[in-house]
Amino acid sequence: MRAVDLIYKKRNGSELSASELNYLVQGYCQGEIPDYQMAAWTMAVFFKGLSAAETADLTMAMANSGDQVDLGKIQGIKVDKHSTGGVGDKTTLILAPLVAAAGVPVAKMSGRGLGHTGGTIDKLEAIPGFQIELTQENFTRQVNEIGVAVIGQSGNITPADKKLYALRDVTATVDSIPLIASSVMSKKIAAGADAIVLDVKMGSGAFMKTLDEAEALAQAMVEIGTNVGRRTAAVISDMNQPLGYAIGNALEVNEAILTLQGKGPHDLTELCLTLGAHMVVLGGLRASESEARGLLEQKLRDGSALRKFQQFITAQGGNAKVAEHPELLPKADVLIEVNASAPGTVTAIDAEQLGLAAMQLGAGRATKDAVIDYSVGIVLSKKVGDRVEAGESLAVVHARANNNGTDEILKQIQNAYHISDQPYSPGPLLLSIVTADGIARL
Amino acid sequence: MRAVDLIYKKRNGSELSASELNYLVQGYCQGEIPDYQMAAWTMAVFFKGLSAAETADLTMAMANSGDQVDLGKIQGIKVDKHSTGGVGDKTTLILAPLVAAAGVPVAKMSGRGLGHTGGTIDKLEAIPGFQIELTQENFTRQVNEIGVAVIGQSGNITPADKKLYALRDVTATVDSIPLIASSVMSKKIAAGADAIVLDVKMGSGAFMKTLDEAEALAQAMVEIGTNVGRRTAAVISDMNQPLGYAIGNALEVNEAILTLQGKGPHDLTELCLTLGAHMVVLGGLRASESEARGLLEQKLRDGSALRKFQQFITAQGGNAKVAEHPELLPKADVLIEVNASAPGTVTAIDAEQLGLAAMQLGAGRATKDAVIDYSVGIVLSKKVGDRVEAGESLAVVHARANNNGTDEILKQIQNAYHISDQPYSPGPLLLSIVTADGIARL
Repeated sequence: MRAVDLIYKKRNGSELSASELNYLVQGYCQGEIPDYQMAAWTMAVFFKGLSAAETADLTMAMANSGDQVDLGKIQGIKVDKHSTGGVGDKTTLILAPLVAAAGVPVAKMSGRGLGHTGGTIDKLEAIPGFQIELTQENFTRQVNEIGVAVIGQSGNITPADKKLYALRDVTATVDSIPLIASSVMSKKIAAGADAIVLDVKMGSGAFMKTLDEAEALAQAMVEIGTNVGRRTAAVISDMNQPLGYAIGNALEVNEAILTLQGKGPHDLTELCLTLGAHMVVLGGLRASESEARGLLEQKLRDGSALRKFQQFITAQGGNAKVAEHPELLPKADVLIEVNASAPGTVTAIDAEQLGLAAMQLGAGRATKDAVIDYSVGIVLSKKVGDRVEAGESLAVVHARANNNGTDEILKQIQNAYHISDQPYSPGPLLLSIVTADGIARL
Repeated sequence: MRAVDLIYKKRNGSELSASELNYLVQGYCQGEIPDYQMAAWTMAVFFKGLSAAETADLTMAMANSGDQVDLGKIQGIKVDKHSTGGVGDKTTLILAPLVAAAGVPVAKMSGRGLGHTGGTIDKLEAIPGFQIELTQENFTRQVNEIGVAVIGQSGNITPADKKLYALRDVTATVDSIPLIASSVMSKKIAAGADAIVLDVKMGSGAFMKTLDEAEALAQAMVEIGTNVGRRTAAVISDMNQPLGYAIGNALEVNEAILTLQGKGPHDLTELCLTLGAHMVVLGGLRASESEARGLLEQKLRDGSALRKFQQFITAQGGNAKVAEHPELLPKADVLIEVNASAPGTVTAIDAEQLGLAAMQLGAGRATKDAVIDYSVGIVLSKKVGDRVEAGESLAVVHARANNNGTDEILKQIQNAYHISDQPYSPGPLLLSIVTADGIARL
């Protein structure tokens, strides 16, 4: 087998076999197939696509390229969740204890973020004392005992995907649906998931700009799941503004606690209940989404979700008192209001711009080795559809006392708000549910 | 400027500017843009094409990437010829003295062949004593004095094209018309041509398999010429069999001499007269192709083309007596007949197969450092349309006494002949003429 022939074959629109895709992925991962051949192949895939069978085969080839997490000693159906990313996305902090309280075992490996704010792991570390490193044995025992553990990604998970993603990033081949889908699914499968719920964002702040694109991506991922024996469902939601009000690590933990107390923002609560309900269904604990949702609502109401969060924090060495006393979380030096310059109705909030502002405040990493300040970030005062008067607060910036360029950041936040003198009512948050049965627009 | 943005732009079907193409070509040539980005860009070009302006800009960027031959001290309009390659192609050996005899200055740099048989330079070296290395000064003086000189390619001509071609070869992006066209034209322009005549082959033995493809390539090259101020014409001919009868270096010199004596094969003579006529027209010596052709026919008839060949050989240190005594050329040890196993009419001759057979006999280089045996090769006894009886000679192999695998080579030659029991009359040799005025099918 020769790489050039496989490039030629894909370029001409033919289907590659599982063994051909394995040859490409293994050869690339082991350095036998050079970057330039993989780049040409990837661009050919951009134009010619991959069939459902090819996408599944590529996914498994990447999943098999490195370590594979064995969750066999954990009882029950392990349902993992993946978000396609978004500013202010703290769903994992809420979902992990929530579905664990309902009986779905959560054995999650999570990454650090490179970008606007930290990843789930960074957010958890904002809780004083929280440890994200557990031995495999303790990880397994903790999930079996309390139903939930979240640890930092270690080992060599899907090295082929890492290498290929880095290549796609510099060769203008990131935005290919089969390549995005296989990248996401390979990581979930290597991490040991039995079933997968996908949180796919759509809109100006997300990678998929239209509902059609988001549905196509969701469908590609669900199809992979079906083809490789992992039940998969996707929830598509609107990302034309940040989720909830808080952006920044400790600020997001605080908002997650509020949500587990049943006092969270409507959009965040709604998305978590929907994603969680699908996790409960795929976990085999309830037959229908509505029954599953009822179960989760009960877990919020009766305080067991919040208690599960405290149990989880305690088990990983953190101070569980934060759940009742959020003031124990790291606090910023100064709070600065960003005010509206003119009255009107908020029609859109550029989440990307707010994310960049949060990163400049120190909430995220511009480079791999940057140190995150857990305390800083932005808390929105107004969201899309809200009426605002001139001089009224749009957002509150939580900053370090001597942060460089704060004035520019404040300006950036102001510019992220689109304000119109016409009334505006926002569209729905939840747009589509994609399962093996098809697409259901909401 | 960033390479990834230019890949993205081309991938999305936008046009790149001259400065963007220069950035890519220069950056690639200097090692600042890595192979993998150029491979992705090239695959994007394969799918999205290049506009006429982009193709011309790419050509000039490649032509400017290395040394440029200055033919300014040579009087007259320098018309270069390029063949898209073919088995048994000895047109340069004939055309150089023929058009020089008519008054077109021929100052040609030519390459060695890697493949079936040697290149023009190797063929000339089959003439005892012939030197292909001349100083720039002697090269110029020789052309001014006798009208013709052919030297080996030296210096660093179009390094960007060399690098890009090697990359395309291993990334399945060779067969892109704008990339082929710009590669050919950049070399001719860097070699100092004022005007260019292209000999484009079409058919099973050629790179372009259909007339439409061949015309598209010819048109792309003529368009480049027009856009960069080099008058360009292309002659498209059929390559469903080798040109002439001889394949192999000394054997082809011999056939070239026969042709210059007016006794050459009909197809070879016809193609040379047509290509030559366009060279004479572009050289400004005659206004119409028919007048130019008349001039060349006269030069063949009155012996001045043959005398020019002798002058040319003498000037470059070779033994000009070969023109009257071809037996002075290197001779093979043994001659072996390949006979037909059944009677019928020859419907096709696989030139590629014959080329490979000739290479295995020692006529060409499988690797860069292989040594060519000038004496060996194949002389066809039958061509397409000829009637053959069982046991009659199809071809005569000129081989070394102890050549390895000769039996297999003989078999290969026999298999290259397609023989039918139905009568068959071959199609025309010359198919189309492409100039700035358009395509004229013949």
